[in-house]
Amino acid sequence: MQIERIGVGQRMSKAVCTDGMVFTCGEVATDKTKDAFGQTQEILDALDASLRQAGTHKERILSATVWLADIKDFAEMNRAWDAWVPQGHTPARATVEARLVSATAKVEIAIIALR
Amino acid sequence: MQIERIGVGQRMSKAVCTDGMVFTCGEVATDKTKDAFGQTQEILDALDASLRQAGTHKERILSATVWLADIKDFAEMNRAWDAWVPQGHTPARATVEARLVSATAKVEIAIIALR
Amino acid sequence: MQIERIGVGQRMSKAVCTDGMVFTCGEVATDKTKDAFGQTQEILDALDASLRQAGTHKERILSATVWLADIKDFAEMNRAWDAWVPQGHTPARATVEARLVSATAKVEIAIIALR
Repeated sequence: MQIERIGVGQRMSKAVCTDGMVFTCGEVATDKTKDAFGQTQEILDALDASLRQAGTHKERILSATVWLADIKDFAEMNRAWDAWVPQGHTPARATVEARLVSATAKVEIAIIALR
Repeated sequence: MQIERIGVGQRMSKAVCTDGMVFTCGEVATDKTKDAFGQTQEILDALDASLRQAGTHKERILSATVWLADIKDFAEMNRAWDAWVPQGHTPARATVEARLVSATAKVEIAIIALR
Repeated sequence: MQIERIGVGQRMSKAVCTDGMVFTCGEVATDKTKDAFGQTQEILDALDASLRQAGTHKERILSATVWLADIKDFAEMNRAWDAWVPQGHTPARATVEARLVSATAKVEIAIIALR
């Protein structure tokens, strides 16, 4: 089976695809002056872009892992998530708190989707 | 490839299935007055139910991620896990500490299995 | 679809394979007197061995999850990672901080790869 990569960097790729699936990196927002709501919106936009490049879309997400730098941001993250996630096509999800690589990143999300 | 969802909620689904695989959400116990042993038992029962709904069972689990609110509960979580996991068919597993969404949840487990 | 297991233990397996994919456990170093760089090297060697046993190799890794006991070890972990990861074939990756089961483990890595 062939592997296709999206946004190949020297350390990691933005997303990696098999014939049937796509695995994204843990996405964080570029603009870290935003609050958890704004950072989540930016992350979800980036995930939409990776899914599109893989020839798929958010109704095909299988699972999502969400890491919050502060679990108190759960409601703010969800405010962006709930507006974005397609009704009737919600993925499996796990959300936990974890210190992130960038001290100003508030949210990180990785997903697995079908192409 | 078709996607089937189990326990579809507005925010997430309990489990999401492809033709060949099933991805569960991060399961936590409903009764959070239980200790880590009891919460783990309840989670494993819920995972068994999701696997059953997906037409599969615990001998087909590929990988499990376990988050403990307090890593000191590792032995108590394992006491329930070890009694449950089928010998000769143990999944790959990773266990780390993470603050969970509910302050009274002590354990959260997500799995990926073959159907 | 058949499941093959590598390093089957009573609690977990070192890696679990489907026809097309391999899921490893969260690998930690055996020699925990090593610093984050040395522990990462040891983990990557162990992952290479599991991939080899599954009949595949590091150019076929789809995604990696890295947990650091102390996020300050990000650069040291990457020093080993960057020397190891095959250019043009980098996986999707997520790195977060988490307390690990062993208090002296500094790094834990789990991967998903194509066979």
